[in-house]
Amino acid sequence: MATFYGIGVGPGDSELMTVKAVNTLKKIDILYTPKAHNDQPSVAEKIAAPYFSEGLTIKRRRFPMVKDLKEKQASWRTIAEEIVADVKAGNNVGFITLGDASVYSTYSYLLGIIDNRITVETVAGISAYTQIAATISTPLMLDDELLEVIPATADAQKIATAIDDNDNVVMMKISANLPLVYQLLADRNLLDQAIIISNASMATQHTVKLSAVEPTEKLPYFSTLLLKKTYSF
Amino acid sequence: MATFYGIGVGPGDSELMTVKAVNTLKKIDILYTPKAHNDQPSVAEKIAAPYFSEGLTIKRRRFPMVKDLKEKQASWRTIAEEIVADVKAGNNVGFITLGDASVYSTYSYLLGIIDNRITVETVAGISAYTQIAATISTPLMLDDELLEVIPATADAQKIATAIDDNDNVVMMKISANLPLVYQLLADRNLLDQAIIISNASMATQHTVKLSAVEPTEKLPYFSTLLLKKTYSF
Repeated sequence: MATFYGIGVGPGDSELMTVKAVNTLKKIDILYTPKAHNDQPSVAEKIAAPYFSEGLTIKRRRFPMVKDLKEKQASWRTIAEEIVADVKAGNNVGFITLGDASVYSTYSYLLGIIDNRITVETVAGISAYTQIAATISTPLMLDDELLEVIPATADAQKIATAIDDNDNVVMMKISANLPLVYQLLADRNLLDQAIIISNASMATQHTVKLSAVEPTEKLPYFSTLLLKKTYSF
Repeated sequence: MATFYGIGVGPGDSELMTVKAVNTLKKIDILYTPKAHNDQPSVAEKIAAPYFSEGLTIKRRRFPMVKDLKEKQASWRTIAEEIVADVKAGNNVGFITLGDASVYSTYSYLLGIIDNRITVETVAGISAYTQIAATISTPLMLDDELLEVIPATADAQKIATAIDDNDNVVMMKISANLPLVYQLLADRNLLDQAIIISNASMATQHTVKLSAVEPTEKLPYFSTLLLKKTYSF
């Protein structure tokens, strides 16, 4: 039966795609993917490209990166309806997403609009925060430890509570709010317990201890902070 | 240079291994893997087996599943020293771990004992809690939402706080403490917001709403609960 596949392509290195993601790409007819600036292929598309089959139709669509929810919803709705029509016409359709398809992904909004009108299958991927732990060969959690994953764009009180209540905290999108997070950790004397990994598994991968960073420093867009209270980085 | 590779093999389906995990298995000489009951291959070994090369030496070792930390540490130390010796003798050595190598894995203890005496590389894998979201095509988190991952064996107050402070909570090892978690969620009128996925991606995969489960029910060992406050399952 014609199916819509949401495929997580992992954090950057094409080798970090699952065998299932690779096999799924082989069986789809049409691939939807976000359009980057200047109509260039997106990061997700570059990761998946080595596995594209020859006959694959690629439909690059614009997913606005704007604050205005209405503008975003209008784009998502148009794209979701295109996907529904393609699947109903008998095509296997894919949508690729950086990292894991279930972690802060536009794919989830498309699913909401599609609302079970077509068959859907989600193919999990390695998320950036999974890969940062592998990059530095450090556990995310052990024994009965807790892990909190929080975007650095969340409200300051939530971030403070996450820091206070957990053994291990991953902060996604740290480049968007470094000064606040830096201050919260400095206040708690936790600068040495935090590390930032940028562009994990990409050619430009970079690791730096938080204590070696200026709070006002401009970090790469794909930067993630890992706080481990039992560690000294 | 001879290297020790920690390889996450994903939650169950061999297709959910990454291409990198498959390629890493091809280049190792010796694979260490936990010995299951009756000397049977472990779940992790069964997942990885389709990708074993012909000349691979498999060393099954016993990792005691006991409460006594000293007994566990003694076993880990013996195995870690064997691994160090094998790598120093020029072999590429692997250790496979169910799910992701950085999530509640014995591999992390081995790394602690090895303490940088040999070259180490960690290959990330799909963790069970990533796969449960894919199984039900449901986001783990969206927008500025938080995700907490906590073992159901953690202390009751921590579990209660995790439930109260987060949008999304994953509880690992739920089979070990279902009555307590059930009660905490019932007290908060959150039974309809929770779902349990057992043996995700395995042939015996099973999904059940928490509201359809008896609190005293015996769940499969590999069962994970997902609480999403904005959902009704």
